[in-house]
Amino acid sequence: MSTEGKIITCKAAIAWGPGEELSVEDVEVLPPRAHEVRIKIYYTGVCHTDAYTLSGKDPEGAFPVILGHEGAGIVESVGENVTSVKVGDHVVALYTPECRECKFCMSGKTNLCGKIRATQGQGLMPDGTTRFRARGKDILHFMGTSTFSQYTVVADISVVAVNAKAPMDRTCLLGCGITTGYGAATITAKVQSGDNVAIFGAGCVGLSVIQGAAQKKAGKIIVVDVNDSKEEWARKFGATDFVNPTKLSRPITDELIAMTDGGCEYTFDCTGNVQVMRAALESCHKGWGECIIIGVAAAGQEISTRPFQLVTGRVWRGCAFGGVKGRTQLPDLVEDYLQNKIKVDEFITHRFPLAEINSAFTAMKSGDCIRAVVDTE
Amino acid sequence: MSTEGKIITCKAAIAWGPGEELSVEDVEVLPPRAHEVRIKIYYTGVCHTDAYTLSGKDPEGAFPVILGHEGAGIVESVGENVTSVKVGDHVVALYTPECRECKFCMSGKTNLCGKIRATQGQGLMPDGTTRFRARGKDILHFMGTSTFSQYTVVADISVVAVNAKAPMDRTCLLGCGITTGYGAATITAKVQSGDNVAIFGAGCVGLSVIQGAAQKKAGKIIVVDVNDSKEEWARKFGATDFVNPTKLSRPITDELIAMTDGGCEYTFDCTGNVQVMRAALESCHKGWGECIIIGVAAAGQEISTRPFQLVTGRVWRGCAFGGVKGRTQLPDLVEDYLQNKIKVDEFITHRFPLAEINSAFTAMKSGDCIRAVVDTE
Repeated sequence: MSTEGKIITCKAAIAWGPGEELSVEDVEVLPPRAHEVRIKIYYTGVCHTDAYTLSGKDPEGAFPVILGHEGAGIVESVGENVTSVKVGDHVVALYTPECRECKFCMSGKTNLCGKIRATQGQGLMPDGTTRFRARGKDILHFMGTSTFSQYTVVADISVVAVNAKAPMDRTCLLGCGITTGYGAATITAKVQSGDNVAIFGAGCVGLSVIQGAAQKKAGKIIVVDVNDSKEEWARKFGATDFVNPTKLSRPITDELIAMTDGGCEYTFDCTGNVQVMRAALESCHKGWGECIIIGVAAAGQEISTRPFQLVTGRVWRGCAFGGVKGRTQLPDLVEDYLQNKIKVDEFITHRFPLAEINSAFTAMKSGDCIRAVVDTE
Repeated sequence: MSTEGKIITCKAAIAWGPGEELSVEDVEVLPPRAHEVRIKIYYTGVCHTDAYTLSGKDPEGAFPVILGHEGAGIVESVGENVTSVKVGDHVVALYTPECRECKFCMSGKTNLCGKIRATQGQGLMPDGTTRFRARGKDILHFMGTSTFSQYTVVADISVVAVNAKAPMDRTCLLGCGITTGYGAATITAKVQSGDNVAIFGAGCVGLSVIQGAAQKKAGKIIVVDVNDSKEEWARKFGATDFVNPTKLSRPITDELIAMTDGGCEYTFDCTGNVQVMRAALESCHKGWGECIIIGVAAAGQEISTRPFQLVTGRVWRGCAFGGVKGRTQLPDLVEDYLQNKIKVDEFITHRFPLAEINSAFTAMKSGDCIRAVVDTE
């Protein structure tokens, strides 16, 4: 009994208002329109960005909304003119779409895509409407993905088919955290053999930077975290050194410069803390060191430094989704996972059913959670 | 009657203390020691960095000192083990040395050189002493060059021989301002055909950025200056557009983004103003635009922006001496000048004899001076 073309009623975790717990309840998911894809979501990760928007601190956050942007599933149906995926494909949702025809996609210089940016930011599908209804109200989309639902609808440029042999409770994590960190090291920074790197923050993203740097045969891979329990995690992913800055008698920048004979070739902020971002820049080697900002800062926060830091050759840059082009490059990352070139299984520390998704948020905020995966069935 | 090995008494402009006028008087110039070169200076430019240190605002400025770092002359004598230049060579002094053996020089990633950085910063020769004496006192060196003197002594890594056919009142300007701007566009930014660029500040450095961008066939070359009289200058060097930000009804960033359909591929700060540096970054195109800081900010000043600017793909970097390796690349710039590929003559708006060097500082601070050249004879 095909559901194609019909409204599907299923469970979703709805965020009715800022600061409220998510409510798991029935939602109507409308059929996909032209250039849209309806996906049966099997697994979704829970990420700090979801918590940030839910908290109400994101000035662009709008409610009611279905959050979630780390989702894997199977295509249930497609709208007209969809050629990128077909019914039955195993897919990962992409919050950074790839249209392959806008100025950004054609530039060859960035993974950002401009095609549906405006509507995605408003929580709407590209035609300006929503495909979710609950309690008689329209429910907004989030990051073009809304994976905290048993079914979701996304633009055909916001989804990519991957090898069906890869378990979906793993591929979902390639939809954000792991890819973000791994891409930051291998695609944005292009870490080279022997480079000294420092990673600030050893959560899911930071651990993925480590494994990217380790794969590129970096020299010292120094992890900086205020939580000593992260040392074991960091070393498991390839870190050579661990520093807890709260236990130093000198500033972390001095420590890192001393450890690396002048500073790091690359530093990565995976904390979202603007003071850490400054320390990361100022721990770079004079002449060529580059600081890559990955973490998302709270609204209104600014980064600062003396311009002399840049005039003497340090570079301050950042990236979103690690600089990875989702449709073009994510399938290869899944293959790398299947060939044991990228760790994914190791990130999963917690699992919850959709009905207990609020516990996943609680777990994420505790220090011992790397990634919580939610089973939507 | 050779002066080799002897103390030379000649005229120099001495800065006895911060904020004082320079005093042109007799100075004793000691012979060069091992790995040192004594140069008879014929012409020197006057640059804002000289004025900055003279003002006393530079926290690292020390007195008494002989300022000046844009100098051209002829090698009078050399100390032991000097192989980089020989007596009679026409040379340009290099405040950014190039030893070709330190970690920086060997990196292939920067034009900075670490070999004599510490002593140069202290106003001393590499052996920790000075070659200047006046009124019975040791006089400090400045930026390893001290070109406000009829004779100076520099390290053999702080000087480069250039084609003797090039007039020295022109080559002196390649010792800082022109090379800094031209190199920032062509070597640091590597402007490509069709790139839209914005240059903040149309002094000597800014005009040189323009000619570098024009030579690389940039698209729009937009010059931003609060002084309308700079428009004619900017267009002479290849600018396609001129904007006076004080006459706009919207922020300069909005104006530049609108003029370039999304922002510039490269922006250059040639003002030293930290607010301008921010505007320059935020005028860059999302996804790939790069802001290059060239201007030197006042002590203690900081640059700031929202990290979102970097996470969405803009890059903040800077350069010193345009990223140009003096000994390796400056001779080619002189050849380019001789082949009319680089404008130099056009920069000279004022000329003064050494005795009137204070008038050169006054002229520099007026709006109509691009470069004042001082004839030391």
